[in-house]
Amino acid sequence: TNLMGTIVNKQIDGEVRKSSRLKIGRNTDKTKTTKKQSRTTPTTEQTTAPPFELVVIESLLGHVCSFESNKVSKLLVTADEILSGISSNFNDKGEGGVKKDAFIEMQAKLGELLPLKNKVDQREAKCTEVAGAIAEVLKNDEDMAAMRLSEIDDNGVEEGDPKNLHVEVELLFEDYLLQMDEVLLSLRTVQNSVKNTEEVVEIELDLLRNRIMRYEMLLELSGLVVGVAAAVTGAFGMNLVNHVEEHPTMFLNVCGGLIVIMCLMGYGILRKLSTDNIF
Amino acid sequence: TNLMGTIVNKQIDGEVRKSSRLKIGRNTDKTKTTKKQSRTTPTTEQTTAPPFELVVIESLLGHVCSFESNKVSKLLVTADEILSGISSNFNDKGEGGVKKDAFIEMQAKLGELLPLKNKVDQREAKCTEVAGAIAEVLKNDEDMAAMRLSEIDDNGVEEGDPKNLHVEVELLFEDYLLQMDEVLLSLRTVQNSVKNTEEVVEIELDLLRNRIMRYEMLLELSGLVVGVAAAVTGAFGMNLVNHVEEHPTMFLNVCGGLIVIMCLMGYGILRKLSTDNIF
Amino acid sequence: TNLMGTIVNKQIDGEVRKSSRLKIGRNTDKTKTTKKQSRTTPTTEQTTAPPFELVVIESLLGHVCSFESNKVSKLLVTADEILSGISSNFNDKGEGGVKKDAFIEMQAKLGELLPLKNKVDQREAKCTEVAGAIAEVLKNDEDMAAMRLSEIDDNGVEEGDPKNLHVEVELLFEDYLLQMDEVLLSLRTVQNSVKNTEEVVEIELDLLRNRIMRYEMLLELSGLVVGVAAAVTGAFGMNLVNHVEEHPTMFLNVCGGLIVIMCLMGYGILRKLSTDNIF
Amino acid sequence: TNLMGTIVNKQIDGEVRKSSRLKIGRNTDKTKTTKKQSRTTPTTEQTTAPPFELVVIESLLGHVCSFESNKVSKLLVTADEILSGISSNFNDKGEGGVKKDAFIEMQAKLGELLPLKNKVDQREAKCTEVAGAIAEVLKNDEDMAAMRLSEIDDNGVEEGDPKNLHVEVELLFEDYLLQMDEVLLSLRTVQNSVKNTEEVVEIELDLLRNRIMRYEMLLELSGLVVGVAAAVTGAFGMNLVNHVEEHPTMFLNVCGGLIVIMCLMGYGILRKLSTDNIF
Amino acid sequence: TNLMGTIVNKQIDGEVRKSSRLKIGRNTDKTKTTKKQSRTTPTTEQTTAPPFELVVIESLLGHVCSFESNKVSKLLVTADEILSGISSNFNDKGEGGVKKDAFIEMQAKLGELLPLKNKVDQREAKCTEVAGAIAEVLKNDEDMAAMRLSEIDDNGVEEGDPKNLHVEVELLFEDYLLQMDEVLLSLRTVQNSVKNTEEVVEIELDLLRNRIMRYEMLLELSGLVVGVAAAVTGAFGMNLVNHVEEHPTMFLNVCGGLIVIMCLMGYGILRKLSTDNIF
Repeated sequence: TNLMGTIVNKQIDGEVRKSSRLKIGRNTDKTKTTKKQSRTTPTTEQTTAPPFELVVIESLLGHVCSFESNKVSKLLVTADEILSGISSNFNDKGEGGVKKDAFIEMQAKLGELLPLKNKVDQREAKCTEVAGAIAEVLKNDEDMAAMRLSEIDDNGVEEGDPKNLHVEVELLFEDYLLQMDEVLLSLRTVQNSVKNTEEVVEIELDLLRNRIMRYEMLLELSGLVVGVAAAVTGAFGMNLVNHVEEHPTMFLNVCGGLIVIMCLMGYGILRKLSTDNIF
Repeated sequence: TNLMGTIVNKQIDGEVRKSSRLKIGRNTDKTKTTKKQSRTTPTTEQTTAPPFELVVIESLLGHVCSFESNKVSKLLVTADEILSGISSNFNDKGEGGVKKDAFIEMQAKLGELLPLKNKVDQREAKCTEVAGAIAEVLKNDEDMAAMRLSEIDDNGVEEGDPKNLHVEVELLFEDYLLQMDEVLLSLRTVQNSVKNTEEVVEIELDLLRNRIMRYEMLLELSGLVVGVAAAVTGAFGMNLVNHVEEHPTMFLNVCGGLIVIMCLMGYGILRKLSTDNIF
Repeated sequence: TNLMGTIVNKQIDGEVRKSSRLKIGRNTDKTKTTKKQSRTTPTTEQTTAPPFELVVIESLLGHVCSFESNKVSKLLVTADEILSGISSNFNDKGEGGVKKDAFIEMQAKLGELLPLKNKVDQREAKCTEVAGAIAEVLKNDEDMAAMRLSEIDDNGVEEGDPKNLHVEVELLFEDYLLQMDEVLLSLRTVQNSVKNTEEVVEIELDLLRNRIMRYEMLLELSGLVVGVAAAVTGAFGMNLVNHVEEHPTMFLNVCGGLIVIMCLMGYGILRKLSTDNIF
Repeated sequence: TNLMGTIVNKQIDGEVRKSSRLKIGRNTDKTKTTKKQSRTTPTTEQTTAPPFELVVIESLLGHVCSFESNKVSKLLVTADEILSGISSNFNDKGEGGVKKDAFIEMQAKLGELLPLKNKVDQREAKCTEVAGAIAEVLKNDEDMAAMRLSEIDDNGVEEGDPKNLHVEVELLFEDYLLQMDEVLLSLRTVQNSVKNTEEVVEIELDLLRNRIMRYEMLLELSGLVVGVAAAVTGAFGMNLVNHVEEHPTMFLNVCGGLIVIMCLMGYGILRKLSTDNIF
Repeated sequence: TNLMGTIVNKQIDGEVRKSSRLKIGRNTDKTKTTKKQSRTTPTTEQTTAPPFELVVIESLLGHVCSFESNKVSKLLVTADEILSGISSNFNDKGEGGVKKDAFIEMQAKLGELLPLKNKVDQREAKCTEVAGAIAEVLKNDEDMAAMRLSEIDDNGVEEGDPKNLHVEVELLFEDYLLQMDEVLLSLRTVQNSVKNTEEVVEIELDLLRNRIMRYEMLLELSGLVVGVAAAVTGAFGMNLVNHVEEHPTMFLNVCGGLIVIMCLMGYGILRKLSTDNIF
């Protein structure tokens, strides 16, 4: 979309309006601006120094934007780290030794997630406010014309028609609005990433829980089968007359019978669970 | 809605405005455009070659649009595959052999879901940005008129009234706005599909978990009943005088009694659970 | 709101504007239109046949609208069936025999829910697109005037002022916009119903799960108590000298003591759970 | 906000426009209208009876509004009852006897929640539609002027300039728009309450589930410890030579040793769980 | 953003319009207003006392705003307390003694969460209403001009052109709109915090549940292994001839064998679970 932006901007402020943009250096190296860099070359019509009030406004706007931009880029790094830490705990599984503390690691990361989310939301509210304030100024031609103090102070009324007067102001504010929009865009990308990660993690946890439960059920099934064996052997261990005390192979008969019964029981229940779509 | 689009477009740009649209071939075969194909036939009024600046803009816009469109169509294929992979694991159940690894397969698919969601969100943000930039140009008649460089360069002022001048530019941008809108529409369809799949999968997992728990409870119930039998037989196995050691049928009495007690206990608890609406 | 609509419409197009609406029959029997039916009676001022281009547009719009309307009404029936199938499984509980397969039935319904949700979302996107296209035409007076081809073809310029010319077109498009709005309204009602059902079903499943877990805990508690008895009886069954082998009532003493201990243990733990607000 | 509304309304229609509002009694006792009650006193300029068409419109609008308002106030009562029924089941816990059926009561309430949510959504859709229809009329000055039938019928054209003509109609529609807005506001408050209740109930259920699971784990831990004892006593109960059959205190040794082992085992596992942040 | 606001405001109402703002003290100490404090110094052009109607409106608006602002700041304190109470229960884990009642404490906090959420939503609805009413007045130049009663009462028509008349009213309402916007902003921050906390708490509870279940499974696994031992020892305890009754080391053989089997079984199952990515 850089390409796109370049065309549109070129058409609007470069060739046609031939506005004498200010030559103030800006510290926006980190956020990729879509403006062309040739803006600071002297234009043909008027090369007068920019009026005092615009220099002041630009420096203030630049300060606010770079302040927010710096904060946001730091947030982005932290967010990336936390989110990749959370999601990697699921995908890296299967390598072995590190797995034991995956849950604990994840819980630590989740402990950092809440302050992160709150910070991103607050930063986003602030940037929206700044962008909203700039946009409001841009919507009102009168207010923008009124900002050209040096044009008014001399004789009380404004020189020239207001339409032309505020072009410089408009371009200045539009530029910084674009910067704030980019900052907002990256904040919203982070919010989306956080939301997506949370949703997927929740389903993964659900999935893992179901798998744990299936194994729990298998263990309980085995426990039941073993319990049946214990009950039967307990019955033969009662101090009562079972009339087969002296039978030479009854011990093996009972043991063998029990093992067969246990296998049949386990198989039968597993079969039933499979029919009911649980396994 | 193709029908609808065709009517509206026919009325607007075909018969009435008789605009001389550019004849540049576009590579939009994959996204179904709602424009009629007869646009490139020579119109009656003026067949002059399109001005240089429009050719450049159209080629740039076409490049951006086809680039996004290609990326999106690839995303759509991946999304379709992953989503159908996730949801099929629930619906295909009941066939048997493949079921064991349904959860593991699903977890693998879920591992792909997070990057997919992030990619779709990022792509949607970019396309929204492009569409927003095009729409902003379309909202401003002045800016569109200012794009007709070849009309201005000669004498400094614009020839003709600005209303007529920008008709060509407007049609050009409207065309690409429509294309971006279609791309956005399919992206949002994917986002909705992902959301729907996630919601349904979560309920399915909940449902499956409840069913597992009901079986777990049955197993625990059986385990309890068997445990009672083990305790009773253990009691008779104590090395204490129970005064029925020599009773000839006491073994069978106790065993029979135990089985009856176990059955009654199991039936009673099941009955209670059924009354409490758990089974 | 029919009442309301009737008043407003009566005021706008019936008495005052006295527009000669087209007399084309429409197949919109199923969707309740808010227009009065007396619209087709001959009005007093001009009873000329409607121009060709309007007849074509109306027939096309009517086709699109009735097509979407039919699809939507079929979707509504399916949605109603699935949703009532899902929610009824919870409310009907307590009748007995059918309950066993409530979960399985519900899972079958949930398998149908995902395609339903995707279909409703797709249909809604399409209808929004159609309604958006109609609304866009309605926003632009010029475009609507340009649609009256028969007024223009004769002498190249439009007869009469454009304000009056497009009244017929405006009424036509407004009518179909209303129809699409109603279709959209019912689609959104379905979306809301689905969302509501899902949310309630999720809470119900959670609630049921908690109840199952409370019973599971009761079973485990009983299992523990029984296990203690088994351990104690096992201790007395050891082939070791316990010095009470010959005590005549020790068997009953131990059994009675065990039962008392089991009751006290069960009561104590239940009491503790009750204090901790679990039961 | 009543204060606020009174100021604004006083300024707009009371002192300045001096409009002759209609003196039709309205049955809006239940919804607190922000209009002052002195509106019906005769104004100074013109006290002519309100024209027929306005009387009709007002009576129809009043009927629609009071109909919706009644339905909504009934819904509010039902919603309040259900929501407080659901949330009270959590907060009232700790009083004792009633607790057993808290879940069942809650499930009954949840069974009522789904129809409630659907009804609120439907009612909200209808009221939004009515409010939208009124707002649409208010946006169009022409349509409002056209409603003053009695001003037009005499000579075909409208008397006076349209700006003044529609002031009465505007005030009338604005009044009912305010009423519908209040109805909508209370509906949205209910929707928010339902959403909030659901979210909190879900977390409470999750929390309760975790607490149940911790107790389940304690029970299982005890069961395991008791099972070890049973296995050891079973070993000594085997009909094999253990060479300590005749040892006089071995019975007490083994029993004491078992109890010590059980305690150590239980303490060790609890300790481990505590280290892993589960207890 | 204070910086930003100061610039914009300075430009608009301070230097350029030179409006004679009212000198009414306001009790907005708590909400940080972005207005400069030098506003109350006498301006150069006209220092006439503010007209009666503006004094009244300002006092009313100030009352409403400070009322809402106070309520909101109290809500913020409560919300902060509850939310930090909820989230701290997760992060403080690992210190020991206090942990036992973390869940119960959290449930108590959750019991306060529902009324808090409802209160915040209601307060937000009210503030939105107030801000909406102020914004609606600001949108209508006519209505604002009509508020300058003292300018109209003398001769029935308004003195001066309406554009200039309403500047004072506009500034007054804009000021209070800004205040309400700040109140709304902090309310929305609270709503976001609540939402974020809920989402993270839900995932933390899910995570904790999975960890509990893994330990439960370990316990069940141990229980199963012990149960096998019990069943085998039970078998040898049966009153049947096993032909090794007199074997001198069979007791140790069986016990040793059992322990080896138990270890192998436990290791094998753990290994299987690890392969299936559960541990």
